[in-house]
Amino acid sequence: MIDIKINDELELTDDKFLMIAGPCSVESEEQILGVARDLKKIGVNVLRGGTFKPRTQPESFQGLGEEGLKLLARAREETGMAIITEVMDEENLPLVEEYADIIQIGSRNSQNFSLLKAVSKYNKPVLLKRGFGNTIDELIGSSKYLALGGNKKIMLVERGIRTFETSTRFTLDVSAVPVLHEKTEYPVLIDPSHPAGINRYVEPLAMAGTAAGADGLIIEVHPNPKEALSDAAQQLTVPEFMELYDKIKRITEITRKNII
Amino acid sequence: MIDIKINDELELTDDKFLMIAGPCSVESEEQILGVARDLKKIGVNVLRGGTFKPRTQPESFQGLGEEGLKLLARAREETGMAIITEVMDEENLPLVEEYADIIQIGSRNSQNFSLLKAVSKYNKPVLLKRGFGNTIDELIGSSKYLALGGNKKIMLVERGIRTFETSTRFTLDVSAVPVLHEKTEYPVLIDPSHPAGINRYVEPLAMAGTAAGADGLIIEVHPNPKEALSDAAQQLTVPEFMELYDKIKRITEITRKNII
Amino acid sequence: MIDIKINDELELTDDKFLMIAGPCSVESEEQILGVARDLKKIGVNVLRGGTFKPRTQPESFQGLGEEGLKLLARAREETGMAIITEVMDEENLPLVEEYADIIQIGSRNSQNFSLLKAVSKYNKPVLLKRGFGNTIDELIGSSKYLALGGNKKIMLVERGIRTFETSTRFTLDVSAVPVLHEKTEYPVLIDPSHPAGINRYVEPLAMAGTAAGADGLIIEVHPNPKEALSDAAQQLTVPEFMELYDKIKRITEITRKNII
Amino acid sequence: MIDIKINDELELTDDKFLMIAGPCSVESEEQILGVARDLKKIGVNVLRGGTFKPRTQPESFQGLGEEGLKLLARAREETGMAIITEVMDEENLPLVEEYADIIQIGSRNSQNFSLLKAVSKYNKPVLLKRGFGNTIDELIGSSKYLALGGNKKIMLVERGIRTFETSTRFTLDVSAVPVLHEKTEYPVLIDPSHPAGINRYVEPLAMAGTAAGADGLIIEVHPNPKEALSDAAQQLTVPEFMELYDKIKRITEITRKNII
Repeated sequence: MIDIKINDELELTDDKFLMIAGPCSVESEEQILGVARDLKKIGVNVLRGGTFKPRTQPESFQGLGEEGLKLLARAREETGMAIITEVMDEENLPLVEEYADIIQIGSRNSQNFSLLKAVSKYNKPVLLKRGFGNTIDELIGSSKYLALGGNKKIMLVERGIRTFETSTRFTLDVSAVPVLHEKTEYPVLIDPSHPAGINRYVEPLAMAGTAAGADGLIIEVHPNPKEALSDAAQQLTVPEFMELYDKIKRITEITRKNII
Repeated sequence: MIDIKINDELELTDDKFLMIAGPCSVESEEQILGVARDLKKIGVNVLRGGTFKPRTQPESFQGLGEEGLKLLARAREETGMAIITEVMDEENLPLVEEYADIIQIGSRNSQNFSLLKAVSKYNKPVLLKRGFGNTIDELIGSSKYLALGGNKKIMLVERGIRTFETSTRFTLDVSAVPVLHEKTEYPVLIDPSHPAGINRYVEPLAMAGTAAGADGLIIEVHPNPKEALSDAAQQLTVPEFMELYDKIKRITEITRKNII
Repeated sequence: MIDIKINDELELTDDKFLMIAGPCSVESEEQILGVARDLKKIGVNVLRGGTFKPRTQPESFQGLGEEGLKLLARAREETGMAIITEVMDEENLPLVEEYADIIQIGSRNSQNFSLLKAVSKYNKPVLLKRGFGNTIDELIGSSKYLALGGNKKIMLVERGIRTFETSTRFTLDVSAVPVLHEKTEYPVLIDPSHPAGINRYVEPLAMAGTAAGADGLIIEVHPNPKEALSDAAQQLTVPEFMELYDKIKRITEITRKNII
Repeated sequence: MIDIKINDELELTDDKFLMIAGPCSVESEEQILGVARDLKKIGVNVLRGGTFKPRTQPESFQGLGEEGLKLLARAREETGMAIITEVMDEENLPLVEEYADIIQIGSRNSQNFSLLKAVSKYNKPVLLKRGFGNTIDELIGSSKYLALGGNKKIMLVERGIRTFETSTRFTLDVSAVPVLHEKTEYPVLIDPSHPAGINRYVEPLAMAGTAAGADGLIIEVHPNPKEALSDAAQQLTVPEFMELYDKIKRITEITRKNII
């Protein structure tokens, strides 16, 4: 596995397990600083938070943009956490890259090859999500756009695919973990929040992905999910996340990894 | 959760985890007795083995029929294990019921409502697999055919669904575990062998299902998978299974269950 | 293509197009005789009507059973139409075979291999539906169970498959028409009613399937769909069907077939 | 339905059927001019040809870029055909817009909301393809990004979705035609080439889509498909297309449309 150096203190290696948590969207200073402090106390070192949001409907909340990036930076300053946020286009890429420690490419842009080529020119770690309509081989194809462009600091994320089952928002394809480990040299993370769609399914999916051998998790946690401006149903509260964190820790002992 | 009494010694309750293992098909006395002894030593108490086989192509091995049932009974006699085997039709139901401790209804018969009604008239525990083209709600509908007919000794099995992903034979829908636990009162088992399709993916899927909160596993184990008459690629060897068994044990400690 | 002789007057050959219509379920004498007369006048020669119904939920209407078969026979007697009805199990197979001119195997029994073997021993034409979770190759496998058992009077039916799209009940896979024509020697019919799920989508799907080269249609028509005991939303009224019939006729002129 | 004015001579209205044809990729002057002349003679007025190609693998031919746009312009000059080509990113949007009469947004960018917003600021007609992993409602969501941005000259395209069936490259969802007609005011075109994946399935899918009520087709035609640099298997030869054109014409008479 390729080691992914995130900052001076964090490096994702074979024997490590990267825990990323934070709200779906950055909404306010109070929200992001509050949840960052809480997560840091639990042991989380990477804070997620969307500021440019790819929403299915144009009427939906589209994110705070640069204002959100600044709030994320403030959270980093205060807590020392690394921050990850999504980039949606080349136009905002320099801005996002300036603020973020990890650049996220979302599910809907997983085959946005122009964006992948542009991101490949930067030196920051990239978290590349599988498109919900994409095969594992297509995800690998997308990772090659980054690698051939010069950036091999890639973390792949399984986040659920489209199937006929409607009890959950997407169907988490846990088998992507062993298949990707076999076919690529990149760490594989699980996003249990989007396939769950409902917060009470996040824990079992997170545990499943971890037990399948994942190298990390990216989980949506919100100080007050009911009032979230996006993905309200699937975000965990801080206490829910804390409980999950302990269980994940025990599973990583079996898969021989230490949470970072 | 409804407690499922399998025989005088085995009862699947909330705090137990049922391990079922054995070959895809019963092939010979040597094969089934050999693997039964090995599995019993590891701690497995329920032996699986198909004798009536639902094969996609009529030219494929269709199972030993009653001869296979007799061999399963001999394995039970010698090892004390309970036996489970699949019934494909009402015609052979009395025969299967006579021999089996648990009656299995396979994925392709999950909506064979006539068979479900017939099985519901017996008193034996039933292991009902989800059809690979069925929603969770349809599986629950099928379980109601059993329950309304009089048999509530039902164990439900998630065994992978059809999706666009072709790296694995089917896509294991681990979220079926929490969803079924929420919507029904029956134990939920995971079959990691059929979604894996390839033996090296069986372990991660088994671990994922267990960590998601499953109440048991049903796994294909063959003394010599390469020479198996069906599902050669996905069956584990006995040493592979032994290694998996230990990891499953550790996960069940986290989910607070004891393997039976 | 194998010619399918249905009765002394009807034979489905390469240059013919078989129109089958009738209610989802036989509900009463008035209902089935009324709709049969109307359909016969329009030019339909094969009447469909379910008397043993495979319903997802056991509480749903399960069909009139033998009573329904008798009503179908009365409709045949009066109108001269051939009748087709579904068989769900070996137990009722002799009864169904006694009454029906064409034996239907439904989507949920498409891989009920025991039933296929039993039906293969009879000499009546068989209409075999694709399972909604089955690939085209699996449908062909199922047809081999019939052919190897001795019955090659097979008509294959594409009736929609399970996909992530929820605007329609199933997704009609029109490409199954050319693929099956290439890979088998059997006529291929389209069932536009089940994939549509809603009556106003039945016409476009019927026209699409016909234009794709299908050898026939099987359509649900009810004298009063709103009061139907099953599939109320997707059944056409007689006037709606009449309008569709004319359009289908014009398309079959392009595909060089004559409606029978 | 909203009327779409393409140029001074072409306007897609309710009673018209738009035929778009041309190679997957613009490869050379000889290729594109040759096929344009042939298509124009048959009656085609809009020429397609990719110059920026979204390829799954970075090693695949990525298109001729601006050079290809110039060749398309030369073909327009000579034949008078309108030209349509795909835009992959905001960077090349001004260039593409300068040359193209219709801007195409491909399946992989169907939820590239930044690109949609950028395209919405131009006044050219847009052909928006459904993402192969997207629901019909998501396609409608994407169209709203264009409309709210100021551009309602939208043509929607059904081009096949991801399903478990592997006999064809994608599964054409013909029901998208009536569903989109019901839910939006935009014309709906069918791309039969990508779902077919193999050229001999293109005709039945094109006919199916037309019979389902589509307002047009976009078909890949290449002077010598075997030597095509992309999508070699699914492109029609000119004689194959000519034969198809005549059949489509007869179907549009039934759906009351005139090919433009």
